[in-house]
Amino acid sequence: MSKPKSQIAVGILGATGSVGQKFIQLLENHPWFEITEVVASERSAGKKYAEAANWFMPGKIPENISNLIVKKLDAKLESRILFSGLDASVAGEAEENYARAGHIVVSNSKNHRFDDDVPLLIPEVNADHLQLLKSQKYTGKIITNPNCSTIGLAMALKPLLDSFGLEQMNVVTMQAISGAGMPGLPSVTILENVIPHIGGEEAKIESEPLKILGGLENGWVKNLDLAISAQCNRVPVIDGHTESVQVKLKKNATREELINAWNSFVGEPQKLELPFAPRQPLHYFEQADYPQPRLHRNLEKGMAVSIGNVRECNLFDYKFTVLSHNTIRGAAGGAILNAELMVAKGMVG
Amino acid sequence: MSKPKSQIAVGILGATGSVGQKFIQLLENHPWFEITEVVASERSAGKKYAEAANWFMPGKIPENISNLIVKKLDAKLESRILFSGLDASVAGEAEENYARAGHIVVSNSKNHRFDDDVPLLIPEVNADHLQLLKSQKYTGKIITNPNCSTIGLAMALKPLLDSFGLEQMNVVTMQAISGAGMPGLPSVTILENVIPHIGGEEAKIESEPLKILGGLENGWVKNLDLAISAQCNRVPVIDGHTESVQVKLKKNATREELINAWNSFVGEPQKLELPFAPRQPLHYFEQADYPQPRLHRNLEKGMAVSIGNVRECNLFDYKFTVLSHNTIRGAAGGAILNAELMVAKGMVG
Amino acid sequence: MSKPKSQIAVGILGATGSVGQKFIQLLENHPWFEITEVVASERSAGKKYAEAANWFMPGKIPENISNLIVKKLDAKLESRILFSGLDASVAGEAEENYARAGHIVVSNSKNHRFDDDVPLLIPEVNADHLQLLKSQKYTGKIITNPNCSTIGLAMALKPLLDSFGLEQMNVVTMQAISGAGMPGLPSVTILENVIPHIGGEEAKIESEPLKILGGLENGWVKNLDLAISAQCNRVPVIDGHTESVQVKLKKNATREELINAWNSFVGEPQKLELPFAPRQPLHYFEQADYPQPRLHRNLEKGMAVSIGNVRECNLFDYKFTVLSHNTIRGAAGGAILNAELMVAKGMVG
Amino acid sequence: MSKPKSQIAVGILGATGSVGQKFIQLLENHPWFEITEVVASERSAGKKYAEAANWFMPGKIPENISNLIVKKLDAKLESRILFSGLDASVAGEAEENYARAGHIVVSNSKNHRFDDDVPLLIPEVNADHLQLLKSQKYTGKIITNPNCSTIGLAMALKPLLDSFGLEQMNVVTMQAISGAGMPGLPSVTILENVIPHIGGEEAKIESEPLKILGGLENGWVKNLDLAISAQCNRVPVIDGHTESVQVKLKKNATREELINAWNSFVGEPQKLELPFAPRQPLHYFEQADYPQPRLHRNLEKGMAVSIGNVRECNLFDYKFTVLSHNTIRGAAGGAILNAELMVAKGMVG
Repeated sequence: MSKPKSQIAVGILGATGSVGQKFIQLLENHPWFEITEVVASERSAGKKYAEAANWFMPGKIPENISNLIVKKLDAKLESRILFSGLDASVAGEAEENYARAGHIVVSNSKNHRFDDDVPLLIPEVNADHLQLLKSQKYTGKIITNPNCSTIGLAMALKPLLDSFGLEQMNVVTMQAISGAGMPGLPSVTILENVIPHIGGEEAKIESEPLKILGGLENGWVKNLDLAISAQCNRVPVIDGHTESVQVKLKKNATREELINAWNSFVGEPQKLELPFAPRQPLHYFEQADYPQPRLHRNLEKGMAVSIGNVRECNLFDYKFTVLSHNTIRGAAGGAILNAELMVAKGMVG
Repeated sequence: MSKPKSQIAVGILGATGSVGQKFIQLLENHPWFEITEVVASERSAGKKYAEAANWFMPGKIPENISNLIVKKLDAKLESRILFSGLDASVAGEAEENYARAGHIVVSNSKNHRFDDDVPLLIPEVNADHLQLLKSQKYTGKIITNPNCSTIGLAMALKPLLDSFGLEQMNVVTMQAISGAGMPGLPSVTILENVIPHIGGEEAKIESEPLKILGGLENGWVKNLDLAISAQCNRVPVIDGHTESVQVKLKKNATREELINAWNSFVGEPQKLELPFAPRQPLHYFEQADYPQPRLHRNLEKGMAVSIGNVRECNLFDYKFTVLSHNTIRGAAGGAILNAELMVAKGMVG
Repeated sequence: MSKPKSQIAVGILGATGSVGQKFIQLLENHPWFEITEVVASERSAGKKYAEAANWFMPGKIPENISNLIVKKLDAKLESRILFSGLDASVAGEAEENYARAGHIVVSNSKNHRFDDDVPLLIPEVNADHLQLLKSQKYTGKIITNPNCSTIGLAMALKPLLDSFGLEQMNVVTMQAISGAGMPGLPSVTILENVIPHIGGEEAKIESEPLKILGGLENGWVKNLDLAISAQCNRVPVIDGHTESVQVKLKKNATREELINAWNSFVGEPQKLELPFAPRQPLHYFEQADYPQPRLHRNLEKGMAVSIGNVRECNLFDYKFTVLSHNTIRGAAGGAILNAELMVAKGMVG
Repeated sequence: MSKPKSQIAVGILGATGSVGQKFIQLLENHPWFEITEVVASERSAGKKYAEAANWFMPGKIPENISNLIVKKLDAKLESRILFSGLDASVAGEAEENYARAGHIVVSNSKNHRFDDDVPLLIPEVNADHLQLLKSQKYTGKIITNPNCSTIGLAMALKPLLDSFGLEQMNVVTMQAISGAGMPGLPSVTILENVIPHIGGEEAKIESEPLKILGGLENGWVKNLDLAISAQCNRVPVIDGHTESVQVKLKKNATREELINAWNSFVGEPQKLELPFAPRQPLHYFEQADYPQPRLHRNLEKGMAVSIGNVRECNLFDYKFTVLSHNTIRGAAGGAILNAELMVAKGMVG
């Protein structure tokens, strides 16, 4: 593995938004990356970050960030890597422009996830998809991470796919409110309530795993052939998406074989010992009422996925619960791991 | 319909518990029933109800109940009808004893739900199952209502079964904490959390609808042949169970045909204009993020079931959301409607 | 008392906002008032109400309102009474214009509360302040109700003032999120949290009671001489403001005398038997952990104030808890009672 | 400062309870202390800790603890220091017995807080009270920490007392549910609610600061002469007690002087650089709506106290908000800091 010889300068696109704030929080004291540029909309540009941002992360703004002057979205930047937490309404063009200008854009936005030459990356699952970058036309590069509710799910499915094959997957989500960004849902809407609809979310869950779990053929991703149905609900939880999952496998497998497949699963980040890699990506819990968002979302600093309560199903083969931290593993933390993978693979010059 | 000529004296078994308190709250000012006896455990017996009960319903204890002296569970009673909110650990024998002694026991407990000669009753769905009472051996009678998470579901399924046939049904529940009774879950367990397990609940949902939706053959219920899978979660909602449901039908049906089947559904309680009957048992909402527990659980005084967001499904035919009030329609209110049906049918002498 | 001979036509200003929706919900089936006009901003004008409003009250839009065409804020109106839930940014001028045009404006907004000739009215407390209307210059009239956190407090103080005199009053509020309107606070801000600040709220609580509790001298209000200190907090409660109150009295009084003063308190609305009048405006609870917002906010349809836990204080004379429903008694319901008082007093021609 | 040459063996009394679990969680990887004994009631004794405890802390049981065999409360122990999270019903005698047997008992229980010869210790505030131990009759020692709602408050008051003197202090608390232990409040009691009463809590807040802030005279504590009034409320927050505080000072002081007194405050733990010492014990926030429990309870690993919104008061001199983590700074973490202080002072042989 290549470790960087010195700190790599990184910039945050959409630095005042909720994903941007999470990037700043998570990158404090990162061993490889140092935030030197923060970028936001015209309204914030020119101000000190501490004045421009309505900081709502726990704790204080890291001191070295407070006084950075916010740059405008189309400004010329100097950072090698740009983490993008831009809103989808502006991310498409802005990310392309920065990639053309030679930056490595590590995006959390949905805009380029399905571009044929852009990896939709979960390092434990499809590190080999980085090969797509060879086809990319940009001087720099764009890589993306999946939707917050897809990441944990795809990680839980990967060892099942590898060991037993997948025929059908059904999922009902109970998603945390932080996934809606800021301001997100009004408090009177969600307190002591469930909202049985999240716009556009079901389509993402029904499509993204097909690319992520797809194999490479001639340098391009061939989507997995898998029937997926998703129903999405919002629940009054701050962080952590809980998912009730059902799978139909291609081969017979015992409950113990599933559990073993999860607990023994490791991927590239574990082998490379990347800074943000969880030691064990998937944790199976034997206690029937585990995992729970408040107890397990922060497992391995929010980068591990928790699974529990696997049991036989009358309609599919098995049903179980999957939990992952939506703003760490499912967003900013996942993007940081993506960048680390590129660095370790020597793809960040 | 027979309306009673005078108020019918009713007693509440388990009157200090959460279901018992709900019975008392709902029966205040009931046009047919008057609570004249409250029954609880030895610990409470002999005290005034206001002193024995740790009242936690909104509002005050109805005045005529406050001063009733609590009777012991095995006491001889005089009420014609006994509403039972007894804990399952004692309900089995106690309810039988009172039925043998000539009382009509209208039970919310699980103990007798699967007795061959006991109706598992939802008046809109299977009023004809009252015929089972002809086979009952008791001087009085026992009738039961289903589990709180089954009732709304079975009501939503009934018109689909009648119009299109049912092949498969899959459900993931997000259940309110009041369903766990009192004290139920510790607050630090469920606040800002999801608990992906409710002991014994999935088995109830996978079995009860088969009896409820079954037809009568030679005076006995023949269970419906239907494959059901259920996953149960507890969410931080006070009242109202939300369910993400999927169905595979026997006949083709359009989305509009489903909605029409729901909106036009009526049953015996509506024809008989029973006091607790909702005017319209099933309400379909066109707004994609409806129904929601806090907004719709009290629809038609908590006795109607709300449905929304029906859409095509990649794995089944349709998926949709069902919501019903778990302690009103799903427990005490459902039991009261059961009793009203018996009265209206002339089965309460 | 004059009861109206026929329904009085009323309009709702700011009909699509949170206070406006509450007016519509509460006025359904009102015996005296019938909503015939709904008024909102230019964006909504011309649309049917059901299309213009993002309805978020429990239950459905009353049928007779759904199809009303929303009128623009400066439109000429025909209703005798206008209930105003306008935002403070526009309420000042709009309410004056409508009063000049001959309407009786019953406002929930803060803009005119301290006008010398405008009553800041709580019918149980200062019905005599309606005399200020004689001095009003408008063809119609403007009356206002106090801030949501002032109303319950002022009602609880009134009998103490009358019986024992007040020297000092200290209050710390724990206010519900519905008081912030819609969208109000983002859900990630308040869920599982306390916000120890509500902009402008403390100043209202420290000033409004002085006018409300002031006497009339020569036709004008002479403010009460009372030192008040307030601290305001927002808590994750949907409805119902809870307040920890301390008072120093002018005369000695026993705990029982305070309780008796509260429980025996009645005002004009009770004597006049106004439709929205609670039978008993102040309810004292003996249980030490009462009142609680979820259990008691809806007491007497949300129009009564609950008090509890009165005990001696090391710094003041007594401390106790006050609770009232902030959007019913503290806003729309309070305004409706104000209008009813005017009708009953023959002041609505 | 004496640092221990090797790990000090410590035991946890009441190890399966909520405070006990917190001790175990916080002591994982402690540089000085190593848990070698876990002690609980007869029911748990003899089992492995992982089987005896219903673990409800976030994350997993530390591996070295899982397999420890739980000892019975009256068992002979070998640990030098015993951290006690015992219930008050048994703590009194058990702690004395262990102190007599030569152990240093560092207690979180209330039983011995007011013993004349037992320090009620907050190391930043009254480290000198350790002198009381000279008078203790035990072979070992007992030291205690204050109630969870007292600790943050006393820390915030200390620099004001030192710089300006204190005449009166008034406080209204909004306390987290974790303070009630496990199971604590039923979830249907507190969700979307406020409980305006916590049994015995007000008396603790009105008395404990007098001892903590008192000076030493001839080797004994002379209580501070200060009038305190407290009102306690429970709110739906997991961790973190928020307090609305008012003070009357003996000397004039500007707002800036108060803020400066807080921000510059340091005590013995900071000078000694104890492992659990926050770098800065008191943090003043300029943002008016800070501090908030969810954002600031974990400041400096939950050991710092946050203060905000100081403003002039109509009845006292100043009012402000204090926040501290009730189960870390206010319980287990505070006790650990107490033990560290004793070690650093060379009082643990």
